[in-house]
Amino acid sequence: MMNTQLTLRLLIERAEKYFPKKEVVTRKASGIFRYMYADFGKRARRLASALQTLGVQRGDRVATFAWNQHRHLEAYFAIPCIGSVLHTINIRLSSEHIAYIINHAEDKVLMIDEDLIPLIEKVKDQIPTVKAFVIMTDNPELPETALHPVYSYEQLLEAGDPGFQFRSDIDENEAAGMCYTSATTGNPKGVVYSHRGIYLHTMCMGLADTIAYSENDTVMPVVPMFHANAWGIPFAAVMFGSKLVLPGAGPTPQILLELIQSEKITAAAGVPTIWTGVLQVLEKQPYDVSSLRAVLCGGSAAPRGLIKAYEEKFGIPFIHAYGMTETAPVASVSRLRSNHQHLPVDRLLDIRSLQGMLVPGLEMRVVGQNGDVNWNGQEMGEVWLRGPWVADEYYNDERSKETFIDGWYHSGDVATIDEEGYLKLVDRTKDLVKSGGEWISSVDLENALMAHPKVFEATVIAVPHPKWDERPVAFVALKPDFKDQVEKQELLDYLAGQFAKWWVPDDIVFLDEIPKTSVGKFLKRSLREQYKDHLIRM
Amino acid sequence: MMNTQLTLRLLIERAEKYFPKKEVVTRKASGIFRYMYADFGKRARRLASALQTLGVQRGDRVATFAWNQHRHLEAYFAIPCIGSVLHTINIRLSSEHIAYIINHAEDKVLMIDEDLIPLIEKVKDQIPTVKAFVIMTDNPELPETALHPVYSYEQLLEAGDPGFQFRSDIDENEAAGMCYTSATTGNPKGVVYSHRGIYLHTMCMGLADTIAYSENDTVMPVVPMFHANAWGIPFAAVMFGSKLVLPGAGPTPQILLELIQSEKITAAAGVPTIWTGVLQVLEKQPYDVSSLRAVLCGGSAAPRGLIKAYEEKFGIPFIHAYGMTETAPVASVSRLRSNHQHLPVDRLLDIRSLQGMLVPGLEMRVVGQNGDVNWNGQEMGEVWLRGPWVADEYYNDERSKETFIDGWYHSGDVATIDEEGYLKLVDRTKDLVKSGGEWISSVDLENALMAHPKVFEATVIAVPHPKWDERPVAFVALKPDFKDQVEKQELLDYLAGQFAKWWVPDDIVFLDEIPKTSVGKFLKRSLREQYKDHLIRM
Repeated sequence: MMNTQLTLRLLIERAEKYFPKKEVVTRKASGIFRYMYADFGKRARRLASALQTLGVQRGDRVATFAWNQHRHLEAYFAIPCIGSVLHTINIRLSSEHIAYIINHAEDKVLMIDEDLIPLIEKVKDQIPTVKAFVIMTDNPELPETALHPVYSYEQLLEAGDPGFQFRSDIDENEAAGMCYTSATTGNPKGVVYSHRGIYLHTMCMGLADTIAYSENDTVMPVVPMFHANAWGIPFAAVMFGSKLVLPGAGPTPQILLELIQSEKITAAAGVPTIWTGVLQVLEKQPYDVSSLRAVLCGGSAAPRGLIKAYEEKFGIPFIHAYGMTETAPVASVSRLRSNHQHLPVDRLLDIRSLQGMLVPGLEMRVVGQNGDVNWNGQEMGEVWLRGPWVADEYYNDERSKETFIDGWYHSGDVATIDEEGYLKLVDRTKDLVKSGGEWISSVDLENALMAHPKVFEATVIAVPHPKWDERPVAFVALKPDFKDQVEKQELLDYLAGQFAKWWVPDDIVFLDEIPKTSVGKFLKRSLREQYKDHLIRM
Repeated sequence: MMNTQLTLRLLIERAEKYFPKKEVVTRKASGIFRYMYADFGKRARRLASALQTLGVQRGDRVATFAWNQHRHLEAYFAIPCIGSVLHTINIRLSSEHIAYIINHAEDKVLMIDEDLIPLIEKVKDQIPTVKAFVIMTDNPELPETALHPVYSYEQLLEAGDPGFQFRSDIDENEAAGMCYTSATTGNPKGVVYSHRGIYLHTMCMGLADTIAYSENDTVMPVVPMFHANAWGIPFAAVMFGSKLVLPGAGPTPQILLELIQSEKITAAAGVPTIWTGVLQVLEKQPYDVSSLRAVLCGGSAAPRGLIKAYEEKFGIPFIHAYGMTETAPVASVSRLRSNHQHLPVDRLLDIRSLQGMLVPGLEMRVVGQNGDVNWNGQEMGEVWLRGPWVADEYYNDERSKETFIDGWYHSGDVATIDEEGYLKLVDRTKDLVKSGGEWISSVDLENALMAHPKVFEATVIAVPHPKWDERPVAFVALKPDFKDQVEKQELLDYLAGQFAKWWVPDDIVFLDEIPKTSVGKFLKRSLREQYKDHLIRM
C-alpha cells in the first residue's frame, strides 16, 4: 500500500479544506477573540515561513512559553510542519528548571506570551542557545524588555507567506514536539513526540469508545497547552474539525463556566482540581451547562465524590482518563461497557471512578512482585506500557535506563486490574505506604477523605516510623464553611468505618491548602520532606 | 517513541484480553452457532499452528473460499498473524477467473466451505500451486471429493496448539491480505493489503465521525468476507470488541431481518441491492428493527428513494459510504455535520445521498479536464486518492501503470465536490454518456428512475449513436405489482420533468431483472455489448 507518512501536515490541511469556517475561540483579558480554521491555516503558514526566515531549520527546537490561545495553536502546527520541534515549556516551573530545559533542549527560538516575559527575563543570561525571542501580543508596540533580540509575532506573520507549503518530505518518525516532565529528584526529563506518535494518538482520541472527538463537538482544553500537548486536544480538534475554545491566561472557575455557557462547550478537559473548583462555583450559582456531553478528567485520580456530584447533581457525564507525559498522554479511559447498562447507579459510579480500559493501540502489563498480577481487582503491580505513542527514552538523559526496560515503559504507577480489565490506580511506587511489610494505598485513603462532605482536598503520605518502617499521615484542607470546625477524631472514625484498622493514618494534619505541583497535582515530595520526623516526634 | 509495528496481532490480542465473553454468532442452515472471543482466539491460535504444520511459511498465500462464518473469521487473523497472506477469493467469479487468481496469487493452501467444493472441483486440474485443500464443515466426516489432498478444518484445529504465539516480528508493511477486483476487460487485478493499511483503516472505522464502531455495537457484515475484507468490519469488531453476527451462506432478506430482530443488530452493512431487498420484505411484514443505529451502504450509489424509505418509514439512519477494493475499502462517508442540523428534512436526505466527506487519513483530488475542479457541486472530475490504506499497485500486474500515477490512485470514478467538500459520484469514467461533446451522468438518470414509485431497479448506459456519438438508454425492472403495466412514455415524461431535454434517454428497455456482477453491481458491460446496435437499428 502507499507509503504515506503520518505527519501533522495531514491534520492542518484537513481543517483548511473541510472545516474552513469552523471557529477557534480565544478568551483574552480584553474579551473573546474568534477566527476560523481558514484564518488559522493561513496564519500557521505565515508563521512557518517566518520561522524559516529567522533561520529555524529542520530538527531545530522552537519553544513556546504561553497560555492556551490561538497563536499557541498556530505554533503547534507551524513548527512541526517545517520539520522543527515544538517544545512546550511549562510556565509554572522554577526559574532553575526553566533555564535547565531550554539549555537541555537547545531551543533556538522562544515564543512568549507578553504577560510571561518577566519569567523569561529572570533566566535570560543563562540560555545562550536562544537566538530570537518572539513576543505574542495584541499590542502593536513591543513592550520594554531586557530580552534580545525580540520580534513581534504579528509583525513576523505580516511579513510571512500565507501560501507557504508545509514540508511533504517529513518522515513520520521525526520529532514533532517535546515536553519535559518533573522528576522525583533532579532536573525535569524530556519526552520527544514523533509525528507518527501524535498522529496515532489523535486517531485514538476520535474513537467512539475513547473520547469520540467529532466535528459536532466544541472542545475546551483547560489542561494547559504546555502540559503533554493539552492531552492532544488541539491536534484532535484540528483533525476532526471540532470548534475549539481556548480559555487563555489563568482561567478561574467562573470564567470556565461562562465559556461553557456562552460557547456551548460539549467536551472540556482538565485535572481534578479544576473540576473541584468549578463544582464549588456551580453549586452556588446557576450556569447553563447542558451542552456538555463530557468532562474529561485526568492528570491525577478524580475522587468518586467529584464524579458523583457532576453526574448526579448536574447530569454531566464524567470521563476519567489516565496517562502521562511519556504516553502523549492518554493510556486508558473509563467508559461504561454494554454489559454495565443494567447495573445500579452506585456500581456505575465505581466503574467511572476507575482509570478504565487500555485504549486501542497500546499494550499493558501490570507487574507485581511475582510477575503479571491476576485480573482480580486485588493484586497490586506496576503499570508497564508500550505502543506507538509511548516514549522509548528520555531525551539525552542517563535516567532513561531506569524507566525504559526491555521495550516497556515502567510508569512507576501501582495499580490493580479487575476481571474486565479495568485499571485502578492504587499509588505511585514511591508513594505506597509500606507498613510492617504490607502495602497501604495512599490514594484509597485520599479518595475516602475527599468524599467526606466537609473535606475540600486531602493527601496521604508515608512517614518514617520507628516500629512499622512507614505509617500513613493524612493532610486535609477543609471546605471554607467547615474551617476550624472539624476534629481529627471525626475523620479518623470516618476512615475506620471503611478500612482495616492498620490502614487508618496515624495522624491528620489540617492545612489551609494542600501544596501542589506546577501542573496541579499534590506535591507529596515537599510534605514528605517537611514531615519526615513527624511520627518520631509524636 | 516506541517502534511498535501496527499489526493484526494487536487486534486479536485485544479481543482476547478485553472482550473474552463477547459473542461471535454465525447463522448456519442448522441454526445459530455462537461462541465467544475467548474461543475465537484459541481456535485462531490452533489454526495458526496447524497451518505451520501444513508447511505454510511467512509470505505464503493462503486462500479462503467461503461465506461469512466463524471459521472464515479465524482465518482472517490466523493467516496474517503468522506472517502469511490471507487471500479471500470471490466465490461468484467465473471458473476461469477463479483458476486465474489462484495461479496468479500462487496460493499454497485453499480453505473451502463444504457447500462450495464443487466450484473448486471444476478448476482442480488448473491450480498446481495448491498443496492442500482444507474443508470447513461441521460434519465429522469429510465429504467425497475429487480434491486432493484434503484436510478437515476441525481435525487440524484439534491437533493445533491453543497457546500458540502469534509472530511478534512482523513488519507493519508486510502483506496481511489480498483481494482481486474485476477489471473492465481481462483478468481480475490483485490488491495487496499491508498490516499497517488494515490497522489504520480499522482505527478510521472506529472514529465517531465515520462509522463509530464500538464495544456497544452488534455488527453484521452482509457484505461478503470475500469482498474487500467485508469493508473491514471483521477487523473493527475484533479491535473494538463489538458483538459480531455473520449471516452465513446466501442470506435472504428474511434471514437478515430475523437476525436483526433476534440478535439486536445495531450496525449492518451491505450493497444497495441488499437493502432494496430487505426493504421490500419489511414493507410487507413487520420486524423489530429498532436496535439498528446504522445501515451502512456502499459498493455502488444508493438511490435517494432507498435512503428516504429507511429513514422516514422505519427511522433507520442510513450511512452512505464510498470506497473500493483498492482503498481497503472505505474512502468517504456521508454523515451530517453540525451546521446541517437545522436544514429541512429533504435537504438532509440530499446530503445523505452523497458519497460524503473524505475520511480522516486519506487525501483526495477531483481532477477534470483543466486540473482540480472547483468545489461547486457542478464541475466533474476523476477521483484520485492517496493514503496509508490505498494500494500503490496491482499485484504483479502490467496494468498498474494505468491506474497508479505519480503517487495517486486514479479511481476511474467521476464525481463533483460541493462547497463543503461532499463528494457526489456522477459516473465511472467509462460509463459517462458523451452526447454531442457534452457529458451526461448515467448515475443521475438511474437515481431518478429508481426514485419512481413503480420502478424496482434501473440502469443507464451509453449506446453508440450515428449523430451524437453516444446517447443514453435506460433499462428498467418494475416492481412486481406494476409489471407490464407501465409505458415507456410515462417514465420518459417523468425524467423530462427533472432533466434537460438532451439528457432524457433515447429509449427505455424493460427487463425482468437488471443483470448484476458477482458483487451485486449492475453489469453494464454485458448490456453495452448486447445493445451496442440498439440505436442504429431503431
